[in-house]
Amino acid sequence: MRQTEWKLAPLDEARERFLREVRFSPSVESVPVLKAHDRITAKPVVARRSVPEYPLAAMDGVAVRAEMTVQAAPDNPVQLSLGREAIWIDTGDPLPDFADAIIPVEQIGVVDEQKVQIFNPVPSWKHIRMVGEDVCAGETILPANHRIRPIDLGVMLASGVEEVSVWKPPRVAVIPTGSELVLPGQAPERGQIVESNGTMISGYLREWGAVPDYCGIVPDEPDHLLQSVQSAVKKCDMVVLNAGSSAGSEDFTVSVIRKLGRVVQHGVATRPGKPVILGIVEGKPVVGLPGYPISAYLGLQWFVRPLIEKWFGVKMGEANEIRVRLGTDVVVKTGAEDFVRVAVGEVRGEMVAYPLAKGAGVASSLSRADGWLRVPTDHNGWKAGESVTVELIRPRGSWKSRLLVAGEPDAGLDVLADQLSSRGFTLFPLPMGQEEGWHTLWEGRCHLVLSAGDISETKKVEMKDPSWVRIHGWRRVRGWMMRSVSGPGSISKWLRQGAQLMIHPSGTRSRQWLEAQWADWGINPEDMQYRVAANDRQIGAAIAAGAADIGIGCPAVAREFGLLFVPAWEEDVQFVAPKDWLRSSMGRLLMEELQSPSFRTRLEMMGGYRCGKSGEMIGSF
Amino acid sequence: MRQTEWKLAPLDEARERFLREVRFSPSVESVPVLKAHDRITAKPVVARRSVPEYPLAAMDGVAVRAEMTVQAAPDNPVQLSLGREAIWIDTGDPLPDFADAIIPVEQIGVVDEQKVQIFNPVPSWKHIRMVGEDVCAGETILPANHRIRPIDLGVMLASGVEEVSVWKPPRVAVIPTGSELVLPGQAPERGQIVESNGTMISGYLREWGAVPDYCGIVPDEPDHLLQSVQSAVKKCDMVVLNAGSSAGSEDFTVSVIRKLGRVVQHGVATRPGKPVILGIVEGKPVVGLPGYPISAYLGLQWFVRPLIEKWFGVKMGEANEIRVRLGTDVVVKTGAEDFVRVAVGEVRGEMVAYPLAKGAGVASSLSRADGWLRVPTDHNGWKAGESVTVELIRPRGSWKSRLLVAGEPDAGLDVLADQLSSRGFTLFPLPMGQEEGWHTLWEGRCHLVLSAGDISETKKVEMKDPSWVRIHGWRRVRGWMMRSVSGPGSISKWLRQGAQLMIHPSGTRSRQWLEAQWADWGINPEDMQYRVAANDRQIGAAIAAGAADIGIGCPAVAREFGLLFVPAWEEDVQFVAPKDWLRSSMGRLLMEELQSPSFRTRLEMMGGYRCGKSGEMIGSF
Repeated sequence: MRQTEWKLAPLDEARERFLREVRFSPSVESVPVLKAHDRITAKPVVARRSVPEYPLAAMDGVAVRAEMTVQAAPDNPVQLSLGREAIWIDTGDPLPDFADAIIPVEQIGVVDEQKVQIFNPVPSWKHIRMVGEDVCAGETILPANHRIRPIDLGVMLASGVEEVSVWKPPRVAVIPTGSELVLPGQAPERGQIVESNGTMISGYLREWGAVPDYCGIVPDEPDHLLQSVQSAVKKCDMVVLNAGSSAGSEDFTVSVIRKLGRVVQHGVATRPGKPVILGIVEGKPVVGLPGYPISAYLGLQWFVRPLIEKWFGVKMGEANEIRVRLGTDVVVKTGAEDFVRVAVGEVRGEMVAYPLAKGAGVASSLSRADGWLRVPTDHNGWKAGESVTVELIRPRGSWKSRLLVAGEPDAGLDVLADQLSSRGFTLFPLPMGQEEGWHTLWEGRCHLVLSAGDISETKKVEMKDPSWVRIHGWRRVRGWMMRSVSGPGSISKWLRQGAQLMIHPSGTRSRQWLEAQWADWGINPEDMQYRVAANDRQIGAAIAAGAADIGIGCPAVAREFGLLFVPAWEEDVQFVAPKDWLRSSMGRLLMEELQSPSFRTRLEMMGGYRCGKSGEMIGSF
Repeated sequence: MRQTEWKLAPLDEARERFLREVRFSPSVESVPVLKAHDRITAKPVVARRSVPEYPLAAMDGVAVRAEMTVQAAPDNPVQLSLGREAIWIDTGDPLPDFADAIIPVEQIGVVDEQKVQIFNPVPSWKHIRMVGEDVCAGETILPANHRIRPIDLGVMLASGVEEVSVWKPPRVAVIPTGSELVLPGQAPERGQIVESNGTMISGYLREWGAVPDYCGIVPDEPDHLLQSVQSAVKKCDMVVLNAGSSAGSEDFTVSVIRKLGRVVQHGVATRPGKPVILGIVEGKPVVGLPGYPISAYLGLQWFVRPLIEKWFGVKMGEANEIRVRLGTDVVVKTGAEDFVRVAVGEVRGEMVAYPLAKGAGVASSLSRADGWLRVPTDHNGWKAGESVTVELIRPRGSWKSRLLVAGEPDAGLDVLADQLSSRGFTLFPLPMGQEEGWHTLWEGRCHLVLSAGDISETKKVEMKDPSWVRIHGWRRVRGWMMRSVSGPGSISKWLRQGAQLMIHPSGTRSRQWLEAQWADWGINPEDMQYRVAANDRQIGAAIAAGAADIGIGCPAVAREFGLLFVPAWEEDVQFVAPKDWLRSSMGRLLMEELQSPSFRTRLEMMGGYRCGKSGEMIGSF
């Protein structure tokens, strides 16, 4: 029984319809103000005391009766006797009964212990904080459906409110489903996966003020799932199911919801995030989120967050948006709304965004992302350099500490990134060929470029602008990574006989070297089968797992994955940067790190790296 | 001993100098990932497992060996036997050993239980999620000094990280000082104040990831204070003192800090927030915040928050800024940076900001504010209508649900505000005279105007634009509020003899009525002494507290404050609004509420109100 067809709805329409059909009747509870931080008011909060409750001194000075000062003048000071006609008073002290004005301390002449002099008349009620100036008893100090902030706690306590009526938070069942899942903390066997979405979902629910109820893993058995949903609906106000929302043979969620209640919508026209289920069981919303982390995250934001907002009657704020230039082309298919993760950097005062990996499974790219680029259904993307709007998922300004390094992929950048991160900066590598890297730098879409090997004479002439400088990175050993000694004798023979090869993107040094090698061996590249990976680490991981046989890499990555390493060549890598950028704080920090013993030692300890000249200026081209 | 002089430093300079002098060496602790939400990483976090760990199906379908499909064509399907050559597989399942590609379910022909048909060749590794596609073992998944979000928890768990090294949070002593303070929950006697800033400060510290240590109230005694600071410095990483940072006779804080360590800066050139103390005792920062809630709040944001950021090595994000038009003039003195609280509304798609009360004591205005308008030292403000930048302290878009009502102050608006708040809208009253209100509406700086009494014929002609409509608000009784029967017989006599009078702003109906009354009584307004308050409630509170004798108000407020009420006149109040605005969602909601039995009943129950025609359309002028 394979249900493969569904009728997708546009995101906004699906959400609106679902929210309209859901009805909540949350209950109210009274909590002490001291425990009310981040709770949501259920009714307007009314002051029980005025603030101030009686007139207070607004200055340090003496409290007087204004009418006693009318004759005062600089050449005719009025003397007042302390204790009867004038009383020393500090800011915030209650006004003595006889007084109706304050004369500030700097306008007072002290005659002796008993007397002060006044040089100017003061109108009554001058420098006095009036009753109710801040809050009047009976006044509404907080509206209903308001998230209580620390400043609100202060206002409530000051105005005599000690208990506050707040909405009881919704209890939300979180049910991870899938026979392949094991709980965090358990070691997964082959075919098993650690359940991690449930923890993510619970975290966001808690952030939004709900109480997550993690129900444990439910295997892919319809009866089991049915029972879990039934009991979750009994004890909770909403239910979130994770995975099982697609149409595969083990995706029973839809039929379970249909059996227990009804399905409002199955599937939205978005990429990623499509296989979402919106249902209602016994009047309670049941949301089936897709299993891929990115899709689960998006579904949670699109459908569960608005449910929580509806429960509390609050909006949690609109997306924080910025305009940025695109660092590379973004190409998508039409027919669904695309949500592209992007990283943002600031180059020469302008914001640049780079799309991150596309797959819905690539959770680490969301963790690294600064925001989303939303591409409308009928749109197929933008060119590099175009201006687009990004919805931020990090605080504004995070991008100021992001260093964009285009060009050659190299494991040394990881070490540099670690060093910089403990100083508050994030290195963001943009793996691409040398020429493309230079172009990117030229157009102001990155801070610097890592380049390796020789630079052609033509290029040197083109780059002969004294505003560009070259800095020694490190010297590196490159070669072949493999699980075991190549079967049929030589590597060239093995490749000809169909060894599974994994290689770097075109334009990179490793690719160039390999293409030259093929030419030497008389291999026609068109005869070769291979797959492309972004960096040594991805190639190493694939070989170690048996998904590829051989690839180019470095000794450090080979060692990390327990692979054999056959050295092939050695070369210098160098950074190219605008001369003036090196004087910026980020530039100075980079130079400092490159020259630091801790960076050099760490990189050399990895094996295959020499850092004797790291951070030395080579000069212009 | 009265120290009244201090050398103020500009805010930014004081902060930079203080932060430069403070040195932290936080320690690191290891916590389970499941408890790491919102903690800050102390080192880069490295993946322990690749994700995926082995090749996985990226689609539902059958797993095959690609080379078995090369001959397939729509008119020449290849048959594969299930179990040996093809295996049904769901998204996320591990790839069987023999297979290297997936054919999606919709491209498969089912022959029988044993066989499927393939109509096109598939390249190897098609529809397969490669090893390490998401995360490679050994890869850095989170940088150091990163605040852990729920999505990061998911990535860590998925990549085999179960414990994470995070910074130990700083312990921050919170010491409220002042002999006049009593703890929350205790009833203050005359001259006492409920300590509320400490709760506010602790709340923000907690939000920023620190651990507040509320030390209890310290009275204004130098020895006592000295001991408290000494013991706080021993057990905590930072100390925040509240109040006692000014130069009054009971402000010992500076001398205590000087005795125990040193004072880096006393006083910053800001309004409010000036009397701040920045000190260092035994290498630990000690911050003395002013006692007024607004000043305490600002000092906390300016100096304590950056300390926490420095401790963790994170920035908590830049201010979220918006450009707005000013609804009224903002006038400030030069010589210090002014921080003006503003409320923001959106009228016809444009953002408008109104300044709130100025005093540093008026905490409720901060609780109501949407953000800050920062006026540079050498600047003295802006005119209504000018564009300015506001730093938001609420989520973006909060203003969308704010209803700006200019014009006549009336306690009925409070009831309306309460009703609207439970429907997610905030009514923001802008008390001003009727003419000024119309002008404000005309210029698009408010949504509607409340007006009372007769409208002059001239005005009617001016307003005779069919795009404006009038709606019945309610009928109200107005009159005199006082504590006891006026002494010397009649009110006019009492006023002539110097009764303390409190009245509404000029241009309001109450003020107009009073001025007419004075004319009737033959009183010259210039002979009268009075103070101005924004609304009935402030007048009532002042009279009840004995700070005024008599004023204009309504029966409801008089009753609330236990005052006598002498009715003087009765009148209709009405709303004026742009006709098309009434069709907006906010307009429809307003009309609905005015006509609702619950609003009418609540307002009439207050006494002095009649709502028979509330929400009825009167028509144009």
